[in-house]
Amino acid sequence: MKVDGTHYRSLWWDESKGSLQIIDQRWLPHDFRIESVETIEAFATAIVEMRVRGAPLIGATAAYGMALAMANDPSDESMDKAWSYLNATRPTAINLRWALDRCRATLRAIAEADRKDAALKLAHEISEEDVGICRAIGENGLALIRQIAAKKPAGEPVRILTHCNAGWIATVDWGTATAPMYRAHDEGIPLHVWVDETRPRCQGALTSWELGSHGIAHTYITDNAGGHLMQHGQVDMVITGTDRTTRRGDVCNKIGTYLKALAAHDNGVPFYVALPSPTIDWTVEDGVAEIPIEERDPRETTHIQGKLDNGSIASVQVTPDGTEGANHAFDVTPNRLVTGLITERGVCAATTEGLAGLFPEMAQAAE
Amino acid sequence: MKVDGTHYRSLWWDESKGSLQIIDQRWLPHDFRIESVETIEAFATAIVEMRVRGAPLIGATAAYGMALAMANDPSDESMDKAWSYLNATRPTAINLRWALDRCRATLRAIAEADRKDAALKLAHEISEEDVGICRAIGENGLALIRQIAAKKPAGEPVRILTHCNAGWIATVDWGTATAPMYRAHDEGIPLHVWVDETRPRCQGALTSWELGSHGIAHTYITDNAGGHLMQHGQVDMVITGTDRTTRRGDVCNKIGTYLKALAAHDNGVPFYVALPSPTIDWTVEDGVAEIPIEERDPRETTHIQGKLDNGSIASVQVTPDGTEGANHAFDVTPNRLVTGLITERGVCAATTEGLAGLFPEMAQAAE
Repeated sequence: MKVDGTHYRSLWWDESKGSLQIIDQRWLPHDFRIESVETIEAFATAIVEMRVRGAPLIGATAAYGMALAMANDPSDESMDKAWSYLNATRPTAINLRWALDRCRATLRAIAEADRKDAALKLAHEISEEDVGICRAIGENGLALIRQIAAKKPAGEPVRILTHCNAGWIATVDWGTATAPMYRAHDEGIPLHVWVDETRPRCQGALTSWELGSHGIAHTYITDNAGGHLMQHGQVDMVITGTDRTTRRGDVCNKIGTYLKALAAHDNGVPFYVALPSPTIDWTVEDGVAEIPIEERDPRETTHIQGKLDNGSIASVQVTPDGTEGANHAFDVTPNRLVTGLITERGVCAATTEGLAGLFPEMAQAAE
Repeated sequence: MKVDGTHYRSLWWDESKGSLQIIDQRWLPHDFRIESVETIEAFATAIVEMRVRGAPLIGATAAYGMALAMANDPSDESMDKAWSYLNATRPTAINLRWALDRCRATLRAIAEADRKDAALKLAHEISEEDVGICRAIGENGLALIRQIAAKKPAGEPVRILTHCNAGWIATVDWGTATAPMYRAHDEGIPLHVWVDETRPRCQGALTSWELGSHGIAHTYITDNAGGHLMQHGQVDMVITGTDRTTRRGDVCNKIGTYLKALAAHDNGVPFYVALPSPTIDWTVEDGVAEIPIEERDPRETTHIQGKLDNGSIASVQVTPDGTEGANHAFDVTPNRLVTGLITERGVCAATTEGLAGLFPEMAQAAE
């Protein structure tokens, strides 16, 4: 998507440097910094510190990390070591393991001498696939937005609430939850997006930055506000992303998603989740019981980063000295609260049958 | 309650200066500043800017504002003017109007020459009553905490989640939601309090400051986290305050309370609301439809105040330049989600019958 009129992806390969280029998202929305990632340690740091973030983008980044490992040392041992090292960076998003598993399975069948080139080609493929998947999610979600728009007086915006940033910078391009919004906007359907702040890391500021760059009307709200807006008929639909979806359609996403799903259910607002199929964990049924929830540094809760009046970026401590915080990064929304899943193959019910109906070969392979 | 070992109330009358002393809460938890309020304009500013905040404390402050007006000019005209001016400062908390109505009704019956002294006496009375009411709420809530503690293995803490600051600095002393916690702690019942941050103004930092000063174990969490904690059995009960309660027990409280009530309901966690009877609006039935919700400066959503590493207090801008925010300050939790109301006269169901049973004379007077 565009930044100040120039088209960017959230990562790209620089042939001349022979290294991956990323947007260091820690400084967004205030500062647009590009970084070159050149060692396995730098790949891990980029994921752990959330310089790159968002389940699909983490997967694509890990694939490039594997490509670097193969360029350095194409042995099986090196491959396994890179798999373990990168897989340990974040525990919740399933795309990370999915990408690493795919790389390892493919590369194992290839002679060591050919692995360097094959691994880079595979990372490119995974990135391109992600773009294609997100574009298809956009098409399928667009149909839902169109239906809502059709029931409104002409010119009245479809009001969509979203949580966290499941935007183009959380994927390689287009985003998941945002893809339908970009498509609808481009088609001339008037939209208004309620952007949840998403404490502790305020990814809502990233979503605001994305939507603003693309010219989509939006309002930044605290995470507390969505229920009130739904009670007063100000939200037509919710679309969020997901970091891991179970085979029956439980949705593990950024902490607080569950609260918005409860409010949507209580007020009859449709609650959709947009997901690329690599986000589905076919081995898991019950999300609340089975998915490990990452606990991050409590400082993310007691401190907040932003821009001072003088333009510099700083962190302020909100709490009294010595206050302890807890920082669970994700929660699980049970499938009973999810109206539908927007995938690259269409929209389905958040049920075992719904997902297996769209992805029969994957459901079968997992049995 | 105590600040660094010294007992404070959140406001007090200084006889020597002839003026009201308040704790300017805008600088808490980082800085403890006392301010003298000496003009009607300063009273209004103190309420509008939330130097004083919390429904009960706003009521007591307004009573002293009326006392000042009577000292300046004891005429009916001056009284009505002060009523209108102070009543317009904040629209949602009902205690403000309750206190002003009470002052006006009492003072009208008194000769002009005696109004100055009578008004000050009345403000003192309203303050003392608030302390007594909160102490009684503490006793009644303590019984509920005791019941939960009795079902736990010895030494295991009762885990209470609270939203916003319904603490002693939101009242004259003790607090509403916190009064049962202080009582339980003083009685030796082990507690652990999950303190919701409560964006936009992060009153959770005030609650952390209060609880920390009193030695009660607590953890600061984002507003997004409570649902996840309840799903995983980490919350035994919720206690919040309220800014206005309808005669059937709908609860208007700080934005986001409704989301926690939904999560509590979904997970079978008891959800209690602590309230002094002046918080009941007997004229209102349906909170969602009838209570005006204050919309505050959007800058409170796009910016956050805290302490920089150098110790100075600053605001950081979280969002991109030009992002618009919306800032609804309260929401309404329907009575069906409320397990019980903790009042100065006991605990009752959040129903018309429940409230009328405890406060028959008030229910009748409103008919």
